[in-house]
Amino acid sequence: MQKPSLPKGTRDFAPQIMRKRLHVINTIVEVYRKYGFEPLETPAMENLSTLTGKYGDEGDKLLFKILNNGNFLEGLNAADFEAETDLNKITNHIAEKGLRYDLTVPLARFVVQNQHLISLPFKRYQIQPVWRADRPQKGRYREFWQCDADVIGTDSLLCEADFLLIYHEVFTRLHLNNYEVKINHRKILEAVAETIGYKGELMTLTVAIDKLDKIGWEGVSKELAERGFAPEQSKLLQELLQQFDFNTDVIGALEFSLKDSEAKSAGINAIKELLALLGNKVNSLQVKLDLSLARGLDYYTGVIFEALIHESGMGSVSGGGRYDNLTGVFGLPGVSGVGISFGLDRIFDIMENRSLFAGQDRPECKILLCHFDEVSFHYTNEIAQTLRDKGISAEVYPDIRKLKKQLDYANKRNFAFVGVAGSEEVQNKTIQLKDMDVGSQSQLGLNELIEKLR
Amino acid sequence: MQKPSLPKGTRDFAPQIMRKRLHVINTIVEVYRKYGFEPLETPAMENLSTLTGKYGDEGDKLLFKILNNGNFLEGLNAADFEAETDLNKITNHIAEKGLRYDLTVPLARFVVQNQHLISLPFKRYQIQPVWRADRPQKGRYREFWQCDADVIGTDSLLCEADFLLIYHEVFTRLHLNNYEVKINHRKILEAVAETIGYKGELMTLTVAIDKLDKIGWEGVSKELAERGFAPEQSKLLQELLQQFDFNTDVIGALEFSLKDSEAKSAGINAIKELLALLGNKVNSLQVKLDLSLARGLDYYTGVIFEALIHESGMGSVSGGGRYDNLTGVFGLPGVSGVGISFGLDRIFDIMENRSLFAGQDRPECKILLCHFDEVSFHYTNEIAQTLRDKGISAEVYPDIRKLKKQLDYANKRNFAFVGVAGSEEVQNKTIQLKDMDVGSQSQLGLNELIEKLR
Repeated sequence: MQKPSLPKGTRDFAPQIMRKRLHVINTIVEVYRKYGFEPLETPAMENLSTLTGKYGDEGDKLLFKILNNGNFLEGLNAADFEAETDLNKITNHIAEKGLRYDLTVPLARFVVQNQHLISLPFKRYQIQPVWRADRPQKGRYREFWQCDADVIGTDSLLCEADFLLIYHEVFTRLHLNNYEVKINHRKILEAVAETIGYKGELMTLTVAIDKLDKIGWEGVSKELAERGFAPEQSKLLQELLQQFDFNTDVIGALEFSLKDSEAKSAGINAIKELLALLGNKVNSLQVKLDLSLARGLDYYTGVIFEALIHESGMGSVSGGGRYDNLTGVFGLPGVSGVGISFGLDRIFDIMENRSLFAGQDRPECKILLCHFDEVSFHYTNEIAQTLRDKGISAEVYPDIRKLKKQLDYANKRNFAFVGVAGSEEVQNKTIQLKDMDVGSQSQLGLNELIEKLR
Repeated sequence: MQKPSLPKGTRDFAPQIMRKRLHVINTIVEVYRKYGFEPLETPAMENLSTLTGKYGDEGDKLLFKILNNGNFLEGLNAADFEAETDLNKITNHIAEKGLRYDLTVPLARFVVQNQHLISLPFKRYQIQPVWRADRPQKGRYREFWQCDADVIGTDSLLCEADFLLIYHEVFTRLHLNNYEVKINHRKILEAVAETIGYKGELMTLTVAIDKLDKIGWEGVSKELAERGFAPEQSKLLQELLQQFDFNTDVIGALEFSLKDSEAKSAGINAIKELLALLGNKVNSLQVKLDLSLARGLDYYTGVIFEALIHESGMGSVSGGGRYDNLTGVFGLPGVSGVGISFGLDRIFDIMENRSLFAGQDRPECKILLCHFDEVSFHYTNEIAQTLRDKGISAEVYPDIRKLKKQLDYANKRNFAFVGVAGSEEVQNKTIQLKDMDVGSQSQLGLNELIEKLR
């Protein structure tokens, strides 16, 4: 007999978990929609030609590839295998498709493929699983969910302003009040590089800075030294990479600390416009301008976002930014876009740790109806049908069993109300209603029951 | 430059399609929940040991298999490939996982794996994509959605009664009023076999009957003759396999036409109980007892369902039934279950053909705000922020462009309302509101706007 199991790094979501996940998803969706985003879904499978080369060499290795159907070996001969010199060559021959690795590349593919049908700016949200053959570990899964929103086809900073408002509204609605959103701008990072005398060396700089969280300033300085940075430069860099409150004061601080340059003007102007668009709203947002935020700069070209929840013991729960050439690789250059992505699994874990799912304890279904015998079973079934006709969800325990067993089931499912009917209730056309929240009990007629449950 | 494309048989769902799909999904979910079903999700990937052998030889061939990560060739030698005698052997070596083929086997796997955690009866709904490497054709995709609900762990006919009510409510809510649900019972099919003198030959019989739609009675008779049925038996069979209205009259009809047997009593008793549980409700349901309904009898053991929409040019849009040993293959015998599954794609196609998505024409977002210049752009942004604070969704055209271009965008997105502000509106603190439904236009203050959009 097979003992059933799941592939490593994948999970089932039982009803009591699903309710909570749906609460998070629905909250994010409601906020996205409030800002004009509309849903898009793309297939789990993409052609490997779409996916390969988009996520770096490491990413390519983490793609799940799907074996071609039929005789996938056709056209290969034993020598190909004997050599085994080039696993990639064989892979390409036997697998044409792979599983989605993120939601951004499929978006770019979609926009290019449908460019004559969609109207720019294109605002879409997309909440779907992605798959990566990473080594599973705590909080890292091989199947996990991303909740993305992007605007494609405009370089307006209004999009960035809206994303900051979206962050605030999502985290506030989820009661994750001690969130923090870090932002930075690629042009400001360029201005930092120029200020320490390393114009053009942005990539070297950011690769080192990206490790700040892990190896600290000592480690970063060492790495920069190896790459030819002088100690004074490292020191100056450390002084520059500060965190600022995000309000108009920050303009003065940047003017003061950064050397004048085109990059500096561009960066500061962007921050000014963003602040103007946020107006007084900015005071309620928990945003920091963090000059040490770098995030994959080969990709992002303007504002960069990263969100975290303080005291959660987790890294970022969301990231994003502006990219100026997402669709270029598929043949549509010069289209600017900006987007953010929430990691559902991390948000879920934090909320679970903080017991923020109290509202999702109960099943959607309002009442379980219990009975004592054939007659009361049919009676409760009629009551359930009437309740449903009135738009009230109801379930009848399906078997004639001891009441204790039925109540056990009600408790395990955590119903808010349990209705019990025996011969007396059948005769009087009533139901004994137990309110499981307060522990009270009352004898109600059908109309009273309907009123109570509404 | 890559020209992007999608794998055969897969589809993107653009926002205007997604809105409609979500309308169907949400309707089905609401009804499932009303009857006490709760959500379950399982991973896209399952171990091939879970999937293989569950869907017949044909099904095994249609499984999408996922190439193992890392050096999947390790342990194979050239001779294995040279021989190429056994593609399966190589497949087993290089692929351990496959994509979900349906939602029923994952449910069985879940129930067995979590039997000590879940309380029976277990009522779950599950709406997820499944993948089959079928030859794509009109209405048949390689990635498609199933919307399942099952009850596991009770043999109560209350479940079957509820599913008939669910069918009625789902189709009525979707305005698919000319639906028909066919039901049959395996025991009645057995009684039919006994009546024509072929007790125990149920499988032969049903394989032939299953082809009735395609080859007609002439074809079926011929096939039965080849399998040793006498012409009189075929004729009698044809007389028996009628369709009956589903009400108490049907009991008399069955009593009359079927030869007495244990199977007959069991079948008739089940129908009686089902009718008793439906009570007067049965008169509003469009159910037929169809003795020619057979559906994969190796699997189903009790009631069988099939639903179709008349004049849709499509086959069934839903099927299901009772199975007595779903979990047996995973080591948990003797657990009865019953379920149904809606095919989202077919329902979508029928509704699209019948223009039943009128309510899903508009985006969720209520209003697009347009402007003439920098000042009115910022003004409309402030209005949008205020609207959102009041819980009203709003979008601002993000770039300062000619009004015509902005209105083109509003038309393409099909906004219900468009607000326009120029210098006059900025000065008077008003907005010019266009109601795109009725084509009217009015000058409103902010409070009036909020009232209007609520």
